[in-house]
Amino acid sequence: MNQLDFWFEFGSTYSYPAAMRIESLASRHGIPVAWRPFLLGPIFREQGWDDSPFNLYPAKGRYMWRDLERICVEQKLAFRRPSTFPRNGLLAARLACAASSEAWLPEFVRRVYLANFAEDREIADARVLESILVSLNQPAALLREAQSPEAKARLRSQTDEAKSLGIFGAPTFVAGSELFWGNDRLESALARAKSLAPR
Amino acid sequence: MNQLDFWFEFGSTYSYPAAMRIESLASRHGIPVAWRPFLLGPIFREQGWDDSPFNLYPAKGRYMWRDLERICVEQKLAFRRPSTFPRNGLLAARLACAASSEAWLPEFVRRVYLANFAEDREIADARVLESILVSLNQPAALLREAQSPEAKARLRSQTDEAKSLGIFGAPTFVAGSELFWGNDRLESALARAKSLAPR
Repeated sequence: MNQLDFWFEFGSTYSYPAAMRIESLASRHGIPVAWRPFLLGPIFREQGWDDSPFNLYPAKGRYMWRDLERICVEQKLAFRRPSTFPRNGLLAARLACAASSEAWLPEFVRRVYLANFAEDREIADARVLESILVSLNQPAALLREAQSPEAKARLRSQTDEAKSLGIFGAPTFVAGSELFWGNDRLESALARAKSLAPR
Repeated sequence: MNQLDFWFEFGSTYSYPAAMRIESLASRHGIPVAWRPFLLGPIFREQGWDDSPFNLYPAKGRYMWRDLERICVEQKLAFRRPSTFPRNGLLAARLACAASSEAWLPEFVRRVYLANFAEDREIADARVLESILVSLNQPAALLREAQSPEAKARLRSQTDEAKSLGIFGAPTFVAGSELFWGNDRLESALARAKSLAPR
């Protein structure tokens, strides 16, 4: 099957430009995208990190912010460095996970990324997510549902699946059995997905 | 000045495809390249790592080997996974540092990378480096000179310079005051170098 799985984490910086461009790029190639939110926290903790590596390794962090800024200029994306990093994407990820088959999901994801990386809004705040749902004409009640045991379990199992696929960072694209890590690998991932037999 | 500084480490996997393509790509853009060998070991140790992160973080390592294989296919580069990783590039780096103004340096660097990543030869072995020097019609005596106190000091100070520039991995390209990390950033680095005022 020639679908592309897009594994993203709402707190992840390089997931932002990937989320903003994947749908238009993939549709130009005729490749359907499966949006797969997950959490990096549990994966980082297993590597012994209790924070983003961009905070743990300052030289790497300084470089990343500058690099992201350049990418946003290139992609013509708004960018404002978040005053908190990384932001906790747990609630947004539960919501996105519960809404995985909804047509409005991609736009929801993009608006959450814009809130975090272009508007410096606190995406861990339920009111911020509620305003995004409302802007998409979706009921605020989805937020309560995202806190249900089923929704929590769903994100946990999706994060376990990421781990078992060998995912260690975000964004990661999966085409067939191949992993492609990083916004800059999206084109290679799409080429790979195209080379696979259609569904 | 519109020169591009190419910071590389002989043990570094992604430095291999970068070393193989930088000269032809840069010359097509009319950008002179300064070849700057350095050591990642001291920089990694400051981050608390006593080994390559690709060994310390197995999921990342597994991904890197597959990714490198794909890149080599794309660049039509020979590739054989080295039986030892990372190989110690100290002697080769001292030699390259001492030969920084020699016209044969780029070809020497490429042959050392080929030895490591295409031929699975031990680049820490002086005999391997000697055979490369001989293949370039250069005197084996350069190996002794590369072990002189001056040559050792030169590589040390070049590694210190890398650190002070904020370099934390290899390959890194420096255009003006901007860092570009990774083989996949070479095109962006060249575009940046081109945009700077000519020397």
